Amino acid sequence: MNKTAVLKSVLFGIIATGMVFTTMESASAGKKVRGLYRHVVMFQFNEDVTDEQVKEVEKAFLALGDKIDTIIDVEFGTNVSPEGLNEGLTHCFLVTFKDKKGLEVYLPHKAHQQFVDLVKPRLAKVVVIDYVSR
Amino acid sequence: MNKTAVLKSVLFGIIATGMVFTTMESASAGKKVRGLYRHVVMFQFNEDVTDEQVKEVEKAFLALGDKIDTIIDVEFGTNVSPEGLNEGLTHCFLVTFKDKKGLEVYLPHKAHQQFVDLVKPRLAKVVVIDYVSR
Repeated sequence: MNKTAVLKSVLFGIIATGMVFTTMESASAGKKVRGLYRHVVMFQFNEDVTDEQVKEVEKAFLALGDKIDTIIDVEFGTNVSPEGLNEGLTHCFLVTFKDKKGLEVYLPHKAHQQFVDLVKPRLAKVVVIDYVSR
Repeated sequence: MNKTAVLKSVLFGIIATGMVFTTMESASAGKKVRGLYRHVVMFQFNEDVTDEQVKEVEKAFLALGDKIDTIIDVEFGTNVSPEGLNEGLTHCFLVTFKDKKGLEVYLPHKAHQQFVDLVKPRLAKVVVIDYVSR
């Protein structure tokens, strides 16, 4: 290995390290690339649904992330907005696909259909909006 | 530079490269850290609002990302869901803060208030749900 090769290797190491930290910072800060297919699902549960039944739904929704390959990520949370504009909706799930084809695999998927069967009788209201991020 | 140093440098380059690609894949795949404060805002515009007025709102919302320090990211898109469960809502904006304090700076911020003044008369419906991602 000559001096030029050594120099190249060292420079590469430095540049690569810079890229690692820039990208890690970006990812941990929640900054995202554009063009992702976002599937936003919001629920209001029926009044007679128990806390345990709600938790079961939350868990089952998150578990779809391990069952359906086209799901890049699924996250959720319960409404904490102080604005009072949630129209009774208490839960928001954000499912991310690479593109619309990801959703087209997901919707008819057996695991998703089983989830729908579980959740549907428990819901007073469901709102779904999908968009390609820009 | 001795042989050990050269070897270390090369190994470092290889490991760093692996980290770069793993992290880049993760970021571009839209995988995210948890515990972020998500502010989900959905609009339905009044029927008499023109395409230009809609675009002005979209642009103004995205511009808040440069005007309010606590915004980590803001993205949006128009509804493309085939499910027909969007309840008339056509636009979804996803604003990300580190925590609830981020929202508390944002809501009363002059730039946000100006945006509200612009958009409010143009809206038939607005739904807002905030959650801490898990």
